[in-house]
Amino acid sequence: MRKNSKEAIVEAAVFLFNTKGFSGTSIRDIAARAEINPANIAYYFQNKNGLLEYCFTAFFEDYLKELEAGYQLLDESAESCLKLIVDNLLKYQCRNLQLTRFVLREMTLDSQMVREVMSTYYVKERYYLKKVLEKGMRTKEFKNHTVLYIILQLKGFLTTPFLNMYYVNEVLHILPHEKYFAEKYSREICKWIESALCEAKPLAERRVISV
Amino acid sequence: MRKNSKEAIVEAAVFLFNTKGFSGTSIRDIAARAEINPANIAYYFQNKNGLLEYCFTAFFEDYLKELEAGYQLLDESAESCLKLIVDNLLKYQCRNLQLTRFVLREMTLDSQMVREVMSTYYVKERYYLKKVLEKGMRTKEFKNHTVLYIILQLKGFLTTPFLNMYYVNEVLHILPHEKYFAEKYSREICKWIESALCEAKPLAERRVISV
Repeated sequence: MRKNSKEAIVEAAVFLFNTKGFSGTSIRDIAARAEINPANIAYYFQNKNGLLEYCFTAFFEDYLKELEAGYQLLDESAESCLKLIVDNLLKYQCRNLQLTRFVLREMTLDSQMVREVMSTYYVKERYYLKKVLEKGMRTKEFKNHTVLYIILQLKGFLTTPFLNMYYVNEVLHILPHEKYFAEKYSREICKWIESALCEAKPLAERRVISV
Repeated sequence: MRKNSKEAIVEAAVFLFNTKGFSGTSIRDIAARAEINPANIAYYFQNKNGLLEYCFTAFFEDYLKELEAGYQLLDESAESCLKLIVDNLLKYQCRNLQLTRFVLREMTLDSQMVREVMSTYYVKERYYLKKVLEKGMRTKEFKNHTVLYIILQLKGFLTTPFLNMYYVNEVLHILPHEKYFAEKYSREICKWIESALCEAKPLAERRVISV
């Protein structure tokens, strides 16, 4: 009747980390919520830091797989490749809402573990996104842009709803846990790709108001 | 020779909160770094929570003033109003880099204090942004959009560099503390306003690739 206990531990831990914070949660709390013996946690993860490392690895390994699945389309077209990457990453994060929220929040710290995770996964992510953007600019699908600023904007789109979940729910009344969200938001980012990134008519005839 | 001690306390506290976390920082640590007597902290702020509340209030009161200064331009044009708001908020956050980073990070939690701050300041922010966007759509300066999704994207632009400061520095090599950054990034967001938000030629002739 119960799920396997490793999964139950991770689920309970992520729930508690998101409500009480990582430092505010004890192994005993996690064991109680997961309805298991605390010794099981030690058996699987050694300690709380082991659990944290497991969360990072679990999240980013699958995250990269989704990215790489989209990246396969690069030979076809940079635009459709980038759109598929966005769509894959968004849906992946929506499927793993609580884990995503927790991992993204922890990644805003400067700990030793964050540095290691960053230099492994985020550097790879930058590598793929850079390749896609550079190819698109070379083939004139995309306008010329500063690549790293585009990645910054893209990351903003991809992380904001999850990192600021409470704000998004309570102030904007947008509900990332509803199936509708991933589809609608993915379309919004695709619109941004089409209008801000892709080559189009020159903007010269548009009135530009400087501030 | 020394700055007034209230300011020195806040500066030391924000520095420590950003490196050791809020829970990981003690009043004693703050006093040592600010080179003052711990009793001074109690005198000004009562305790750590008082200090936290002070940081929120200090940040958001001035944040709203910057927003309201831009909002004054609404009678002229929704586009230039929105651009001025973005420019003001970005420059304000760049001038207060460490405080911004700390406050935005704390706002990703679900605490009682966060809820109160949100229902005061973020609800007001939503009110102003909504007014600007709705006016722009009414006057046909802006295309028709789901207002709250545009606010979500705008907030992503405005928060990401500060919330993910370590990533932005170390992975993208973008340096928000350099004067250059606010100007360049503000131009990027203005481009987004022009291309994604503003009314332009129909996109019908553009090839749309669905994913």
